[in-house]
Amino acid sequence: MHEIPDSTRQGKAPWMNSRFMRAARREPVDQLPVWLMRQAGRFMPEYRAIRGTGNFLDFCRDPQRCAQVMQVAVENLGVDAAILFSDLLVVLEPLGLRVEFPPDGPQVANPIRTPDDVKQLRPLESLEPLSYVLEAAELTRQLLPSHIPLIGFAGAPFTLASYAIEGSGSKSFHLTKRFMYQHEDAWFELLRLLGEAVTRFLLGQIAAGAGAVQIFDTWVGCLSPDDYRYFVLPQMTECFRALPASVPSIHFATGNPALVPLMAQAGGSVIGLDWRIRLEDAWKILGDQAVIQGNLDPAVLLGPQERIRRVVTDLLHQWAGRPGYIFNLGHGVLPQTPVENVKYLVRLVHEESRRILEQSKREVE
Amino acid sequence: MHEIPDSTRQGKAPWMNSRFMRAARREPVDQLPVWLMRQAGRFMPEYRAIRGTGNFLDFCRDPQRCAQVMQVAVENLGVDAAILFSDLLVVLEPLGLRVEFPPDGPQVANPIRTPDDVKQLRPLESLEPLSYVLEAAELTRQLLPSHIPLIGFAGAPFTLASYAIEGSGSKSFHLTKRFMYQHEDAWFELLRLLGEAVTRFLLGQIAAGAGAVQIFDTWVGCLSPDDYRYFVLPQMTECFRALPASVPSIHFATGNPALVPLMAQAGGSVIGLDWRIRLEDAWKILGDQAVIQGNLDPAVLLGPQERIRRVVTDLLHQWAGRPGYIFNLGHGVLPQTPVENVKYLVRLVHEESRRILEQSKREVE
Repeated sequence: MHEIPDSTRQGKAPWMNSRFMRAARREPVDQLPVWLMRQAGRFMPEYRAIRGTGNFLDFCRDPQRCAQVMQVAVENLGVDAAILFSDLLVVLEPLGLRVEFPPDGPQVANPIRTPDDVKQLRPLESLEPLSYVLEAAELTRQLLPSHIPLIGFAGAPFTLASYAIEGSGSKSFHLTKRFMYQHEDAWFELLRLLGEAVTRFLLGQIAAGAGAVQIFDTWVGCLSPDDYRYFVLPQMTECFRALPASVPSIHFATGNPALVPLMAQAGGSVIGLDWRIRLEDAWKILGDQAVIQGNLDPAVLLGPQERIRRVVTDLLHQWAGRPGYIFNLGHGVLPQTPVENVKYLVRLVHEESRRILEQSKREVE
Repeated sequence: MHEIPDSTRQGKAPWMNSRFMRAARREPVDQLPVWLMRQAGRFMPEYRAIRGTGNFLDFCRDPQRCAQVMQVAVENLGVDAAILFSDLLVVLEPLGLRVEFPPDGPQVANPIRTPDDVKQLRPLESLEPLSYVLEAAELTRQLLPSHIPLIGFAGAPFTLASYAIEGSGSKSFHLTKRFMYQHEDAWFELLRLLGEAVTRFLLGQIAAGAGAVQIFDTWVGCLSPDDYRYFVLPQMTECFRALPASVPSIHFATGNPALVPLMAQAGGSVIGLDWRIRLEDAWKILGDQAVIQGNLDPAVLLGPQERIRRVVTDLLHQWAGRPGYIFNLGHGVLPQTPVENVKYLVRLVHEESRRILEQSKREVE
């Protein structure tokens, strides 16, 4: 286990006692903490104004604007946590992969297709090439109110590997799976390289001020449980073991609820769910001691608001006042989402969860 | 309940006692029946030769070639059942939607975007505009050996609706979900129209010689269990109730194993699984009386063969000789699949399942 770097002085920071951090540690809260994946995103006019029309990677490389979009999002939406603004794929560049962002989705210009391609990759031995991300983390930390925690993040080794191999989005992930099945040694070497890069990167983000981290395994739901167990779980276990136990680590995946027990086995102090599973079923699988984040379908935010209220109310009934719940979507806010619906959601979760918690307190007394 | 049309004379047909039909009825078999979704597809040189380079819809409208590709596939691969060669989307055309097949995937040129668009749709009151499909079914039935059953098929109302609304493939299905959430009445009207078209179409296919049918809910895995229950399950129930009980009906979906118990509730005498759930877990959920089809990841067929053997052997151990299992993939054969691997799979399942069944018979004796 690594110790928390001294420089962060996290123990004394006001946000250490925030609702998000308390829920992540399974401590009581007065109302549920809420944050949303892609809470700084295209759905928000202020984001689009700051983002401008330039190259997306240039934007990610500009710590000032990255910090600014997140500060504005937190302020506008009234959420309880910030997440570093960056992209999953930036960590691939120092390994030797060329990442591009055309309008129809990110691409790797020199994808991995053979075991030899894996041998050409450089391990991430220094965070210097990613210093712009760490700078963004520091700046965001400085801009944020002191009671708001900053979440660092990285892509999970499988998800990064699938981008690196497919070269772009995929429906079947057949190139990734073929590589995995036909070149096991090179696959595990690739995952080890990516896993080491990811943990080093996350430790750097913690040192720069992140009070929690999230690992995104966005595409892993394309795998069967057996493939996950054999090809993915060992490296995920390594990643979570390399993170300091005192820093909450969120293990997020989408696309296959049958992986949820295996995700928990791999690690992470918080399990991040998509909407494909009912929250109460996830709690049955993970046990009452689990800390869970999620799991509203982002499409619900397209409206109408009376339906948002109905669905959120049902979700909060499934939560039922348990300690250890962080409200979030099951994936990122959709670009088509009306901003007023997002604000409505945050208010609603705060108010309704406070009501539920006060009620259960009265019932105990 | 409809009676089986007399014209099919199914009761006396040799294929009524085939391994596929026996397994679908949970009767004992000497070895497992195998067929593969997209078993007549781009991976096979004979398919590509017969298919040619013309428009895909023209191909679907040519009963002779449709029957021929399936006959060749059955003969080449040694599978135990044929499926009508056609496309999920052809049923949309007589409703008033214009379907096109550019190289990057099917499109609906005039997608449904408003409740008014639903009002413009025509119900399917006659099968005349789909007569080319029924002719393909009849011809395929004629070309097939008499012991090989023919499976008819249609898209499920949700999957057809999502194509009709998105206009093309989608990652988030946000247009579909927004329509569903914002225009409930029009949504249910759309699903009713599609559901009625689908059942009428399937009854026509049964009359034309299909001895079983499969309803493909390919995209429904994007939904939460609650959304499935409310927005999809009632119409699926109607569809399965409108089919004759004596004809096996396969209810197939991909993308969310948490929907499996709800799929079973909706109906279908056989549940078709993708690979996201372990077969033995599905049997636990569905009960030992369930008939299951699936669930090998099509990517496994990319090879190597020793891995195909390992994965299939494990799958057959999960099956464990139960009556009521039809071997299949969890989705269609990938175009990149080597033909020899498909043939290897079919032989392997036949041989290994026969060995397992003989062994368990000896143990009983």
